[in-house]
This record gives sequence, structure tokens and C-alpha cells, in this order.
Amino acid sequence: MCELLAMDCNNPTDLVFSFRGFSKRGGCTGPHGDGWGLAFFEGRAARVFLDPNACSASPLAEFFRNTPVKTLQALAHIRKKTRGHVKLANTHPFQRELWGRHWVFAHNGTLRDADALKLGRFRPVGTTDSEHAFCSLLEMLRATFRDEPADPTAMDDAIADHAGRLARLGTFNFVMGNGDRLFARCDTRLCHIVRRYPFGRATLKDDDVSIDFGAVTTPRDRVAVVATTPLTVDETWVHGDPATLWVFRRGRLLSTLPSGVPIARKVPRHLRATAATPSP
Amino acid sequence: MCELLAMDCNNPTDLVFSFRGFSKRGGCTGPHGDGWGLAFFEGRAARVFLDPNACSASPLAEFFRNTPVKTLQALAHIRKKTRGHVKLANTHPFQRELWGRHWVFAHNGTLRDADALKLGRFRPVGTTDSEHAFCSLLEMLRATFRDEPADPTAMDDAIADHAGRLARLGTFNFVMGNGDRLFARCDTRLCHIVRRYPFGRATLKDDDVSIDFGAVTTPRDRVAVVATTPLTVDETWVHGDPATLWVFRRGRLLSTLPSGVPIARKVPRHLRATAATPSP
Repeated sequence: MCELLAMDCNNPTDLVFSFRGFSKRGGCTGPHGDGWGLAFFEGRAARVFLDPNACSASPLAEFFRNTPVKTLQALAHIRKKTRGHVKLANTHPFQRELWGRHWVFAHNGTLRDADALKLGRFRPVGTTDSEHAFCSLLEMLRATFRDEPADPTAMDDAIADHAGRLARLGTFNFVMGNGDRLFARCDTRLCHIVRRYPFGRATLKDDDVSIDFGAVTTPRDRVAVVATTPLTVDETWVHGDPATLWVFRRGRLLSTLPSGVPIARKVPRHLRATAATPSP
Repeated sequence: MCELLAMDCNNPTDLVFSFRGFSKRGGCTGPHGDGWGLAFFEGRAARVFLDPNACSASPLAEFFRNTPVKTLQALAHIRKKTRGHVKLANTHPFQRELWGRHWVFAHNGTLRDADALKLGRFRPVGTTDSEHAFCSLLEMLRATFRDEPADPTAMDDAIADHAGRLARLGTFNFVMGNGDRLFARCDTRLCHIVRRYPFGRATLKDDDVSIDFGAVTTPRDRVAVVATTPLTVDETWVHGDPATLWVFRRGRLLSTLPSGVPIARKVPRHLRATAATPSP
């Protein structure tokens, strides 16, 4: 299993505070030492920084723990491998171009037989179930909409539907961004917070750091943060319902869409005690 | 105009020495202060580090000037913009996935009307002539070979041919890698060196640094380095002929292919005095 982090906001914001706590889980306060990655969007373009080593001990991660990069959307992932060796090609987040914009994707959970998914123009570079699922999602979008749809809510619905189908293969928590919209699907574990005026104080759960957001924001700022589990101890995070997709844009939660069958209903009742269940 | 750097080798090697000199040209000893990028391959996967700021003053570039990353193939670019604003989407090298492997591309020169090129599944995220040309090259490969060709020399020939056609639009020096092969096209300026046993000493042209390669290599090592202009003052670099494509693999120059019409013949003789000529 892995952990996910994403940020979506209406004014350029850096990820330093959240990433500081999050990255500690990559081999220090958490067991996720099999690589990490970080993506920052600037308009339609993303830059993705990948490192197949433990985040907590990575000099590159240390660089980003100390260097503010302002962005409207960022995604991050720390990996505890379940499928696929520890190597660069298997390091999240994955990136592809569709419709002249970058798409970035990171997954938490495991999908069975994902390599049997029918793919089209997008092919995995590595061997993870996650990258296969991402390629399948993008191919569905390409096949459904010839071009970026004028009505983006049609795209939201298509993503929620297809992700729900993919989730039948196992556990499918993910964050996916295209610089304009941030999609976050909860299967077993995902939470979010929207920070806005009046801003308060927050203290990291994984590091001895707290921040007064009021001192570093304006009343118009709005920042949504999505994470596998809450990153702070003194804020109220919203826990996702199984089989729902959140769609964020410019720091605002636009919609909460049904996305497939909730995890508890995936396994027939008489099999539940013995069937493989997702890791806590 | 911009500057190009690429390395291709048979044993994992870091780029620190070459990048140290090269990156000085990004706003310090050279005028190329409009962004920079650096790609490292690990097998079929690349990680690309992009920064739309001047390389010589970039903290991220400083990180890579001091942090050895061992790889069999690396590509770098420093930008002096001619087409497209300074922004992340216009920062080289560009990256796409084709046939389940990453392709990375960086360009030196300017192509006229590149945005009129017919494109297919690969679309530019930014507004540079360079990314348009890269998308055109990959679409040609996808349309010509349904899958990665069993005989890679057919791919070499197709790239040389198509690049020659694109070069009719202007100046088209480039480096392109897919982790297995490194393609380097000379239009006006490109040179290379293959370092191998017995290794000697080398001194950077742009920084007060020299290295004894004999002390950091084994007799079996073989490292090809491609650059816009020689990076060292005490080695013999091979200067490319206009309209040729070098193909490298595992530090070895596999072939030198004709690629279109040499630059001197592009402009009819009677127009040469007034026609736009490539920058020196």
C-alpha cells in the first residue's frame, strides 16, 4: 500500500508544510520506503520529480521539504510496493499527455489482473497495476471524447464510472490531476480538507512543525488538500465514503460523484471472512 | 537558440562533470537563461527535471551539479527562447510515451510554421516549434511502425528521413533518446566525443574544473557525450556534418545517417545574402 497527497488551490501555494509531514511517512514514521514522487502543475504542463528511493532519506525530497514551489495543483505519492519491483518505471505519480495537457496519476491499493486490461494508445512503461489502470482511464477518455469536452462535468462522470469499473479488480484509491481539475477517488481510505478564510493554525502529525495559515494567506485564498490519512492533528478532515469521486477545481470541491460499488459490497457476504481484504 | 547535451554509455555513469560546465552557459558564461531541463533514463523509463529559470542560478541545477545520478543515458537542454514564452510548458526536454517506453527530446534552432505540422495522437502542451516537431516525429514513428520495430535500424532510417523533412522549415539540431538509442542530428552545430580506454584528463571550458577519467573508470567503460559545442578544452571533439544523424547505443556510435539537405543548400544561392540564416 502507498500514501497519496494532492493539493488544489485558487492562488499559487507551496506544498512545503504538507510535504514535510507526508514525506516522513516514506520510510520514517511510515513504512512507505519504496520510492516517491511529486508533481507540480503550471497551467497545462506538469513537472514530475521521481525518486525510486525512500522519501524520508532522499536528498531530492529534502530539497523539496525546504524549497517552496508555488503552484495551483500538486500531487505526491510515497510507495510501499505490492505489485512491481522498486524501480523508476514503477514510481508514482505517472504522467501522460492527452489533448495537449499533462495528466498525472497516483494510486493507493492493489488491482488484481490489471495487466489484462485492454489498452489503446497509452501503454505502461513499468509493471505496476497502477500504471495499467491509469492507461486504461486515459484510453477511456480518449475513446469517449475525441477532444477535451466543452462540458467538463461529462468528463467527471466518465471518470467516476470507469474508475468504478476498475475498482472491481481490487482497491482503487487514487488522485489524478490535469492542472485544471483534481480527481480524488476514495475506495477504502481518503480524506480532504478545504482551508479558507478565516485561516487557523495547524500542527503536523508526523513532524514537530506547526503553521499559522492566517499569517501566510489572504482572505481570498482557498486550498484543498487530499491525503490518505489526515496530515494534521488539530484540523477537521472530511473522510471519504467508499466508492465516491471528489472533483476539485481552484480549491473548491465541485462535486462528490458515485463511482462504482462500495468496497463492503464488492465481496459477497458469505465470502467476506475469507476473501482478501484491503490493507488498513 | 539553445544548447544541447546528451550522454550515452555502457556502464552507469553520472553527468556531474559535463553538466557542471554546460549549466554555466545557462545565464552565466552563455546567454541561455530561459529555463533548463535534465533527463535521466533507467531502462525504458526517464525522469525529467524541468526548471523555467536560469540554469546557472537555479537551486535545483545546483543540486544536480553536486549530486551524481548514475545512468546509461541522459539528456539536457538550456534555453534561449526564440519561439514561445518562458514557462514550464515550453521548457525542454520534452517527454512522451510511445510503445511503452519514454522518449525525450531537446532542440536547438528554430523551425518556421511548425504549428502548421499535421499531428496525430501526440499534441503539444506548450507553444514551441520544438515540441511540435517532436510530436510530429513520434507520430511518424507510430504511423510507420505499429509496434517497436524488430529491426531498429529501420527506425533509425525513418527518424533520419523525417527529421530531414522537418529541417526544411529552418534549423533542426536535436538530441532524442529512448533509453536504448540516442539520436543526435546536426544541422548547424553539434559535436561529440566517445571517451574510452585509455582514459585521459579533461578540463572544462566553462568552469575551473578538470578530471582524470582514468581514476573513475574501468577499461571496459565507454561514454559518448554530445554537445552543441565542445565542453572541454583538452580533448578532441568530432564536429558533425550538416544534415546528418548520429545514432548511439551503449556509448558506441552505431551509424551516421544522411538526414535531409545540408543547411548550405537549403537556401537557393541567389537568395543566400538576404535570406534568414541560422544564428552562429
